[in-house]
Amino acid sequence: MATIKAAILGFGTVGQGIFHVLNEKREELRDKLGLELEVAKILVRDPSKERVPGTAHLLTDSIDDVLSVKGLQVVFEAIVNEEPSFTYLKKAVENKCHVITANKVMFAKRGLELQELAKQNGVFVGYEATTAGGVPVIKTMKNILLVNEVSSIQGILNGTTNFILTKMRSEGLSFDDALREAQALGYAEADPYNDISGQDAFKKLMILSSLAFGEQPNWADVEVIGIDCITSNQVADATEQGLRYRHVAEVEKHPDGTIYAKVAPMLVDKEHPLYPIDDVFNAVTMETNYIGTLTLIGPGAGMYPTASVMVEDYAEIIGKRAGFVVSI
Amino acid sequence: MATIKAAILGFGTVGQGIFHVLNEKREELRDKLGLELEVAKILVRDPSKERVPGTAHLLTDSIDDVLSVKGLQVVFEAIVNEEPSFTYLKKAVENKCHVITANKVMFAKRGLELQELAKQNGVFVGYEATTAGGVPVIKTMKNILLVNEVSSIQGILNGTTNFILTKMRSEGLSFDDALREAQALGYAEADPYNDISGQDAFKKLMILSSLAFGEQPNWADVEVIGIDCITSNQVADATEQGLRYRHVAEVEKHPDGTIYAKVAPMLVDKEHPLYPIDDVFNAVTMETNYIGTLTLIGPGAGMYPTASVMVEDYAEIIGKRAGFVVSI
Repeated sequence: MATIKAAILGFGTVGQGIFHVLNEKREELRDKLGLELEVAKILVRDPSKERVPGTAHLLTDSIDDVLSVKGLQVVFEAIVNEEPSFTYLKKAVENKCHVITANKVMFAKRGLELQELAKQNGVFVGYEATTAGGVPVIKTMKNILLVNEVSSIQGILNGTTNFILTKMRSEGLSFDDALREAQALGYAEADPYNDISGQDAFKKLMILSSLAFGEQPNWADVEVIGIDCITSNQVADATEQGLRYRHVAEVEKHPDGTIYAKVAPMLVDKEHPLYPIDDVFNAVTMETNYIGTLTLIGPGAGMYPTASVMVEDYAEIIGKRAGFVVSI
Repeated sequence: MATIKAAILGFGTVGQGIFHVLNEKREELRDKLGLELEVAKILVRDPSKERVPGTAHLLTDSIDDVLSVKGLQVVFEAIVNEEPSFTYLKKAVENKCHVITANKVMFAKRGLELQELAKQNGVFVGYEATTAGGVPVIKTMKNILLVNEVSSIQGILNGTTNFILTKMRSEGLSFDDALREAQALGYAEADPYNDISGQDAFKKLMILSSLAFGEQPNWADVEVIGIDCITSNQVADATEQGLRYRHVAEVEKHPDGTIYAKVAPMLVDKEHPLYPIDDVFNAVTMETNYIGTLTLIGPGAGMYPTASVMVEDYAEIIGKRAGFVVSI
């Protein structure tokens, strides 16, 4: 049986999740795809720190060391910022490796470029994990776009801000206390700026814009308003009126071809599809010409949801190369 | 450029929808898939009645006539009952044609058999349109099952009953008046038994059971309760308590391997994910091991949503045969 060699770049929560899922599903993936998968290298900053028992011999801090693995075919990337991630993935693609990324900051900015480069090199880019965690919005939209056009997208794309808004409402917490709880539970980073400012949701929105419309609006023209200005009094007033705050990202293409996007808090009533979306859940609604309105809801983050969709990307890519995805 | 020849079996609402979508998207499909698509035959009961201008020369009432088309590769099926549909599709598959069906009655009962036969003949069966109309629950679940296990499924799988329950609540109509309105709008058949008895939702649930668990419960063991027993007084009482009736289909696999399924009306409160699903919308929620809870919501029926997902099935099958789905 053929063996596929893979590398993991970054071994934090998501990187470790990929490693665990690949190990747990090893036999099943072998049976379904007819291929053995082997994690051959793991790129970390400090290879002297073994984070998962039994992985010490796989650790390296050199991308060249990773890419020199003979027969390497797949690179899973779970690093945080644009660089060195883009440079690493560019090298991987030029090395004829498929790449599967969870890096929304890099992909929002360089995704179209990376995909073009991948096309030239005959490899695929999987990026389901960049947007809405475990919600398969990328695959679903790609499929829909085979036949439909998408005119607009609206959604809750950041689980942390939705968790904070939920706690402010259901437990009457202040913004600061709700944020502290999100941090204690590991939902928010020590520096929560990207989440609460809306920048994280904005990056994901730009990825969806690229997919749906083939382009993005000028970033500088997009109004991005965070949730840190919302007080517990405002939340209580809204609740009294039967309304809920949601942090909504939206993008639409106008008939004249211009693309309008915005990220901002919004008050919704109980008839609105985003009304029941609480805690760290994400939701994405898209307007399409034939199907109409389609909504997907699921967990917006987490080790296993994110790792799981990355392994699905792998299975899909391998299936395509073999000419068949998988028959159930 | 290669030409793919296709046939359409049944030329009612869905069959005509397929024809329109294929024509409207002809150029785009050609550009994306690198193949020309030609509808070569349309099977109808009465070939003397031309339903769509310009199609008279394509009509036939003989399946042998359809299958004798030289180079026929794809059969779209939009007939209603188990037979003659299954016999026709069996012949098509044995003729090495891919089949794409919207026929839930046939597929609930013979779907596993048809898929096995297709596998033996090296062709694919697309059946997205059998379940939840324009909601891509089949594709999504197939993808998820590459890595995840699904333990339970719950949803609103019939748009007509959801429309009736919505009208009873929002306009205070009696069951009979709401049914008449559904019929006037073309949502319910002249004989609405299959919808309001829950039999239609039951068939779709069995299709989801086959996909998620590879098997179905004994049909005779499944409790199927319709909505015709619900009075406008009951609906009014529920509304007063902040509750809504939903007609819910659910199936789950227990740890001991047994499969439990039920279709019945259910009262849900405003925290329940099915609370805001009004009118002819369908919703499907699945519990998975890695991703967690995933919900899809969209239009449960209609010419274009249903036809659109069938053409997506076509695009997906063609993409697989070529080794690539499509890169965007």
